[in-house]
Amino acid sequence: MPDYTTSIEVRRYNHSGLSVLQDVIIKERPITLFVNGKELAAIVCSPVHLKELAVGFLYSEGIFQERKDLRAVSVNEEEGIIRVEADGRIPSDEDLRKRYVTTCSGKGKTTFYLVDDMLKIKPAESGLVLTVDEILHLSEEIEKNTVVFRSTGGTHGVSLCTSKEVICTFEDIGRHNAVDKMVGYCLLKGISLDDKVIVFSGRISSEIIIKIARIKSPMIISRGAPTDMALGIAKQLGITVIGFARPDKFNVYSNDQRVALENKEGLKK
Amino acid sequence: MPDYTTSIEVRRYNHSGLSVLQDVIIKERPITLFVNGKELAAIVCSPVHLKELAVGFLYSEGIFQERKDLRAVSVNEEEGIIRVEADGRIPSDEDLRKRYVTTCSGKGKTTFYLVDDMLKIKPAESGLVLTVDEILHLSEEIEKNTVVFRSTGGTHGVSLCTSKEVICTFEDIGRHNAVDKMVGYCLLKGISLDDKVIVFSGRISSEIIIKIARIKSPMIISRGAPTDMALGIAKQLGITVIGFARPDKFNVYSNDQRVALENKEGLKK
Repeated sequence: MPDYTTSIEVRRYNHSGLSVLQDVIIKERPITLFVNGKELAAIVCSPVHLKELAVGFLYSEGIFQERKDLRAVSVNEEEGIIRVEADGRIPSDEDLRKRYVTTCSGKGKTTFYLVDDMLKIKPAESGLVLTVDEILHLSEEIEKNTVVFRSTGGTHGVSLCTSKEVICTFEDIGRHNAVDKMVGYCLLKGISLDDKVIVFSGRISSEIIIKIARIKSPMIISRGAPTDMALGIAKQLGITVIGFARPDKFNVYSNDQRVALENKEGLKK
Repeated sequence: MPDYTTSIEVRRYNHSGLSVLQDVIIKERPITLFVNGKELAAIVCSPVHLKELAVGFLYSEGIFQERKDLRAVSVNEEEGIIRVEADGRIPSDEDLRKRYVTTCSGKGKTTFYLVDDMLKIKPAESGLVLTVDEILHLSEEIEKNTVVFRSTGGTHGVSLCTSKEVICTFEDIGRHNAVDKMVGYCLLKGISLDDKVIVFSGRISSEIIIKIARIKSPMIISRGAPTDMALGIAKQLGITVIGFARPDKFNVYSNDQRVALENKEGLKK
């Protein structure tokens, strides 16, 4: 994994003394993203799948809304620069800073309201159903696929899956970047997500749910925990959230109509 | 921990079926930060220590440089709004987007250059030295102090420590927020950090190193991994980086003059 990691000398201490050894650590690189010639963002990331990262990031941020609006992407890895040409309205700096979610608290209950362009996201209506065994199988699979994590402990991973198997896996030092790479990959390849599952290594926050809602994936499985705000949004947007996925169990937090105890025909939960 | 968490009903599945139970999940709230009346940032966070978060965030981002520039901070928790009044030049949107680090790759070696206001940070010159036993003790301590993490699995924690003990601990759903809260706390209380150690639960990325360099802490201990870029910057700024801290061992990645095998007087490594 030379693109993800580099080898350095470390000094390891324990109660009995010091040893010097070579160890592998994760690379982190700054990338500057230009859209139609304007500097739009600085991202630090694992320097792999940079084209997918740029496309996924811009889509997740609402900079372009449809694949056809994307005209060209060029990556200069050496200089850490990605240039994107896109049609449509490029948002102002003020737009980019705008809060995208608001809360209403009172009498012990908190509701989350989506604002601005979030309201344009239609709730997931996918009829996808996975059995308990399929979900347990997929959560085991991501452990095998996140090879950089296993050798460095320094990345998050996200896998795009059918109900039966992993299609591809992206890793990055940043949780959000890993998901953006997967989003960019699906957009560039024209992959439809309404019958796919996303298996993620990290905590499920509101921003992660909004990213997967935009690409119309109906289900996310994570070994991590969801937040209450992520669940509030997932319920509004019809997304099934599964957390604390372990080899022998998992929790379903929203839209559990997509989870079946058995897969015999006609037998639902 | 009612400020950090909320209780919900979850559906737990395993091979033998389904059970419905009450579980605790972590709260996430959007906060909008205004500086001198101008909307500057939206942050999602754990809604605890919001004043410290705002102050630490603004200092980490270079919005104000000295404690005396901070005139007032008011927190409206209900509406998720923090208003800060500060002296000095408030940066433009363009400033805020500016990349702060650049790389120079070539012939297998990568060097990181600090740009802009990073160059004003003086390297840590602290004479602080910790023994191996002290470091092992502190990394054990953070496990006990991160109480929200232990009950939810959804937060990162950072502790401010002397060589002997933990002074205080901050937790947040965001790695960066946890560190910003600690930074804000130290600024508000006027705590000097050149004889303190920061013990962190998360991965050490470049941004974390830059945050702790600004407040002049000379040492960070983490159970996570550092990135190569974080280490490049830590070496330039004289910071001791300790990673993969476990109850019985740890790795030192930079400036190991602050680690002593024994604490007998006169006996150094």
